[in-house]
Amino acid sequence: MPPEGYVRWALKIEYDGTGLVGWQRQINGLSVQQVLEEAASRMVSGRPVATATAGRTDAGVHAAGMVVQLDVPEETRFAPHHVRDGLSYHLKPHRVAVIAAAPAAPGWHARFSAIWRSYRYTILNRPTRPVLNPEHVWHIRRPLDIAAMRAGAALLVGHHDFSSFRAVSCQANSPIRTLDCLDIQRQGEYVTIDARARSFLHHQVRNLAGSLQLVGCGQWTPERLGAALAARDRSKAGPTAPPEGLCLTGVGYPTDPFAS
Amino acid sequence: MPPEGYVRWALKIEYDGTGLVGWQRQINGLSVQQVLEEAASRMVSGRPVATATAGRTDAGVHAAGMVVQLDVPEETRFAPHHVRDGLSYHLKPHRVAVIAAAPAAPGWHARFSAIWRSYRYTILNRPTRPVLNPEHVWHIRRPLDIAAMRAGAALLVGHHDFSSFRAVSCQANSPIRTLDCLDIQRQGEYVTIDARARSFLHHQVRNLAGSLQLVGCGQWTPERLGAALAARDRSKAGPTAPPEGLCLTGVGYPTDPFAS
Repeated sequence: MPPEGYVRWALKIEYDGTGLVGWQRQINGLSVQQVLEEAASRMVSGRPVATATAGRTDAGVHAAGMVVQLDVPEETRFAPHHVRDGLSYHLKPHRVAVIAAAPAAPGWHARFSAIWRSYRYTILNRPTRPVLNPEHVWHIRRPLDIAAMRAGAALLVGHHDFSSFRAVSCQANSPIRTLDCLDIQRQGEYVTIDARARSFLHHQVRNLAGSLQLVGCGQWTPERLGAALAARDRSKAGPTAPPEGLCLTGVGYPTDPFAS
Repeated sequence: MPPEGYVRWALKIEYDGTGLVGWQRQINGLSVQQVLEEAASRMVSGRPVATATAGRTDAGVHAAGMVVQLDVPEETRFAPHHVRDGLSYHLKPHRVAVIAAAPAAPGWHARFSAIWRSYRYTILNRPTRPVLNPEHVWHIRRPLDIAAMRAGAALLVGHHDFSSFRAVSCQANSPIRTLDCLDIQRQGEYVTIDARARSFLHHQVRNLAGSLQLVGCGQWTPERLGAALAARDRSKAGPTAPPEGLCLTGVGYPTDPFAS
């Protein structure tokens, strides 16, 4: 519930994480949260606002369908397209914008009401470095074996202890997660890894991508990925893939907050 | 033919046109040609080199599959991957890179041997401004009617006098061109216009996109696009679409210079 005297909005936002310290406010740089809250405060003439997100992203990670809640004083009266366009205006010149806005249903919370999150990890797989989108891909020169990656991914889907793919800094109570899908596709020079789960551990998608890459390059067999999972030991899995290849693509709720 | 004492390479290059003055050397800024020739000259220890392209692009226009010829002194001996990787290395930090390199067949010329060029024009069609790729799309807020755009495009395909879609600065001898295809697709918030022809007039694709947009927004009927073509008068067609949405996607030859 929003605080007394506040109303809650659901926002769908998009951002380029390049040069930002991630979603969460930090003292060492500009965060998506700070940029969004400052824009929202300007929209309500400087009054205080509060936000919470469906999922935190790390420095350099992008989002194309992040969902955020924004609590603003209830005396402010906006139509949804005014919130969307007004916020997007005040968000300039930052590479953060609001794609959709809707009044939140009673009891709705951006994080606690969410039932799934989806991420896409994008690899540019060719000898030549990327020049059209270097901040949005992981560049891997060696040709990736997609069939082997898929065989490895199949061993990771489902309800498992993902300790081997969890950042040491992860604050979740449990390392157990249910990975609903981990799909690997090739489109020309691009290889994408699409992951969906109710929730993810810290760095989980980047750690999965880092290990899948070892399988794709032939350094690991698919079975070794299964063994890495079973070991429940971060040191038994592959490296953390770089943030720039990662994009949060969507968040799901029992009822779409933006439908109507 | 390359000059006496030189050998010719075929290069497939990719570049982000943002901040560059286009393909051709200019005194008022950095061009793709200058960047490429300086990198090539460094690769051959400062000896002179020469380039020619399959198609000139304007300032801000991108390329994903441009083909260029590079003449270097014949005493330089490189394997194809050394040309590709060496040039891409010397091209740093510019957003220009070589995807493929191959020794040119006798008599091959990047421009005169080409039998088609293809371009993609990309529109982001949604209320909110682009933040993930603002230098690679034209942002149009009003929902575009794809069926109407396709009906209009169908009137433009074929062998026509394209004077209405030709820049006043165009230096071609004839305004007659054969437009092989002009395909319009929607993928979510993106609308793409794919054009292919043996050759194009100056600004032709951007002028076609600018008029198709009027049809898509409902300001013009598809038939008006046909009338604009028939008028053979630049003032009867729509505006020139901005350069950032345009990308040269490929160049075709009777035999693929990079096959093998």
